[in-house]
Amino acid sequence: MSATLYGVGVGPGDPELITIKAYKTIEHAQTIAIPSAKDTCMAYHIARQLIPELEQKTILEIPMPMTKDTAILEESHKKGTDMIAKELKQHHNVVFLTLGDPTIYSTYIYIHKSIHALGYSTCIINGIPSFCAAAAALNTGLVEKDQPLIVIPSSYPVENLLTQKGTKVLMKSGRKLPYVKEALKSQALQAVMVENCTMTNEIQYRSLDEIPDNAGYYSLIIAKEDAVNT
Amino acid sequence: MSATLYGVGVGPGDPELITIKAYKTIEHAQTIAIPSAKDTCMAYHIARQLIPELEQKTILEIPMPMTKDTAILEESHKKGTDMIAKELKQHHNVVFLTLGDPTIYSTYIYIHKSIHALGYSTCIINGIPSFCAAAAALNTGLVEKDQPLIVIPSSYPVENLLTQKGTKVLMKSGRKLPYVKEALKSQALQAVMVENCTMTNEIQYRSLDEIPDNAGYYSLIIAKEDAVNT
Repeated sequence: MSATLYGVGVGPGDPELITIKAYKTIEHAQTIAIPSAKDTCMAYHIARQLIPELEQKTILEIPMPMTKDTAILEESHKKGTDMIAKELKQHHNVVFLTLGDPTIYSTYIYIHKSIHALGYSTCIINGIPSFCAAAAALNTGLVEKDQPLIVIPSSYPVENLLTQKGTKVLMKSGRKLPYVKEALKSQALQAVMVENCTMTNEIQYRSLDEIPDNAGYYSLIIAKEDAVNT
Repeated sequence: MSATLYGVGVGPGDPELITIKAYKTIEHAQTIAIPSAKDTCMAYHIARQLIPELEQKTILEIPMPMTKDTAILEESHKKGTDMIAKELKQHHNVVFLTLGDPTIYSTYIYIHKSIHALGYSTCIINGIPSFCAAAAALNTGLVEKDQPLIVIPSSYPVENLLTQKGTKVLMKSGRKLPYVKEALKSQALQAVMVENCTMTNEIQYRSLDEIPDNAGYYSLIIAKEDAVNT
């Protein structure tokens, strides 16, 4: 019997935004991989609130440093792949917890690809993406009718896409906020921001003027064609 | 005590992709609104597989015709708003079921806005968007690193955004497939398609050449910068 690596999205923060499928997959697993140490891992913290038995499971702490240094990243992905492959080789399924959805800017996807390349079975179980949760927290929709939805990561030059029609979502802008705010202003776009969406420390900023110059890593800006508020 | 309209996303098709929060909200509700007749309503069909007690609840069938005729749409939204407001006025919470996520191209959002404008309390409970589920079904990620995610609805001219960097998702292309395929070819983009994602009749098309000229309404194309398959 061959074992499987499950990449499971735990959603944006509220433990009840975990799907039934993710819940069952985590509950049945014996070995759980997480992308940092237990104490600091947001995905682990979210899942544990729903599934306290997580504390009795084997936890593989995979070092996933937040860096753009390719050499460091490759080394940590290789180490993570080795740790997980060792478990799979012993026919233990592994459940890798990741914040939001595994298909959207997740660190999990690198491990997924390398484990898949080694010939092991892999499976993605979706979570609620942070931008959907941010719109819900603001009690508004993201896109309607013929509006495109354009999600822009912080490392991409935002000007290239801000001129396009539709709703723009700027992910993880945290330290780049002065630049992002300037770019939005120059396009005469209105915007709102949600920090730590659905977490207990969620903060909403209802206009571009309210948005500060510095915010945490889990900050997300929504700029709509029309007014954002319903 | 005032009543609330809950817009609840049931995800793409697999009932287990419903979140714990959506499950509890549906389970506790007495009045359920659905965007068509019970027999043909996909969102009702999905939720009922997980929550058979749905059959004992009061079901409001809100007519939501699939048309671009503004007069017909406005009339049906007005009728739906009246039906729901009548329940809220009697202090009955209403749970409106919608496919995928309520913030992304959902018919629910029009009712949400008009009920909110009448001064009633409204609440959005997220579901897994179809494009995340399609990537998971293909066992691949959607976006990594600095790649933007560009979601394009079928009614938008796709050429305007296909030249942009990042992953392009083309929603509900069904009857426009010959035009969409031509536009993708002219940009030398590779693409895959998932029809009826996570439903029992899911079909995957692994290359542009495999994609037929006609497909059902729930068809979704993913065009990535690099090869889509892991």
